[in-house]
Amino acid sequence: MNNILPKSVQRLAEVLSSLPSVGPKTANRLTFYLLSRNEEELKNFGEAFSDLRKNLISCSTCYIVSETDPCPICNDSKRDAEKLAVVEESLDVIALEKARFGGKYFVLGGQISPINNIGPHDLKITELLDRLKKGDVEEVILATDPSLEGEATSLYIDEQIGDLIKQKEISSKISVTRLARGLPVGGDLEYADELTLARAIEGRSSYK
Amino acid sequence: MNNILPKSVQRLAEVLSSLPSVGPKTANRLTFYLLSRNEEELKNFGEAFSDLRKNLISCSTCYIVSETDPCPICNDSKRDAEKLAVVEESLDVIALEKARFGGKYFVLGGQISPINNIGPHDLKITELLDRLKKGDVEEVILATDPSLEGEATSLYIDEQIGDLIKQKEISSKISVTRLARGLPVGGDLEYADELTLARAIEGRSSYK
Repeated sequence: MNNILPKSVQRLAEVLSSLPSVGPKTANRLTFYLLSRNEEELKNFGEAFSDLRKNLISCSTCYIVSETDPCPICNDSKRDAEKLAVVEESLDVIALEKARFGGKYFVLGGQISPINNIGPHDLKITELLDRLKKGDVEEVILATDPSLEGEATSLYIDEQIGDLIKQKEISSKISVTRLARGLPVGGDLEYADELTLARAIEGRSSYK
Repeated sequence: MNNILPKSVQRLAEVLSSLPSVGPKTANRLTFYLLSRNEEELKNFGEAFSDLRKNLISCSTCYIVSETDPCPICNDSKRDAEKLAVVEESLDVIALEKARFGGKYFVLGGQISPINNIGPHDLKITELLDRLKKGDVEEVILATDPSLEGEATSLYIDEQIGDLIKQKEISSKISVTRLARGLPVGGDLEYADELTLARAIEGRSSYK
């Protein structure tokens, strides 16, 4: 193979197959698709990659990836600053924005994951607690992934908040909530896994 | 959404979602993954795109995408020049090379597809027939896709070769073959579609 394909074709195929969820076959297919695009388009593609991190910073308030500090969300006075959704990644903010969450965000930068050697101190948990000490947040919505690591991360944060409430560093009026677990809307009950279904039963609400 | 994400992030997500089989969610996920790579890596990614078509030409013998003319395959005297596999795309050459086909290739540049307004004259069929007139090819293996359009393309080429044999422009000793249809190796008989199974019965061989 190595001596058959042009080097530039091999190089792009390698680059693409280094992306998550792109296997070597998909990488080849995408590369040959890209061969059908003109030089101008390819230049535009290339720049989109190389310029990705140009002028990007973290918002010093919520740690979302941004061009400005504060970011447009932290800067938006029409938002409900009393509600703070704590998420793992900037990408999660997009998902919650689509679901029309109108509060503010805090991006942890990952999840506690001993297997990947990521502990609480690798996340912005201290910064989160510092923010809560300021007293303007009334509800902390722990919106980490509904996975083992996500749950562990939320549990850890909840404990830390509890400690600070005991030490009177955070008002005892602050409430800590989590997103509901249950059946995905539009899904089939028979295809739901048993854990999800058990959570859906546990969290059932009155039918009116 | 538009005023939340940095422009460079939106741009790369748009570029990625313009690729075939990459939806907007995958594009977002890939973009945020790429945000975790350093500037040097992103520059390398970008160059792989923008340099893709640099110095690329078509081999004037087989029309594969190449850096040299003739391409490494056409230039390889150890290959069996009597066997010519006719394929749709350069990508198909890679697949046949992996299957250790030792002959030469001819890349048509697509398939006859009236729905996409692609007729025989948009493919390198005249060039293929000219090559066969030279007389060094003894077997033409029609290796187009096993789809409606692929079969139509092979059928058309077979008829053209037949005409030229009648007109004595091509030796009548030339044989035209096609790849076998049948059960994919490693597959499950019960999952085979009825057309494939019918072809597998039709093409059955003696068990020894």
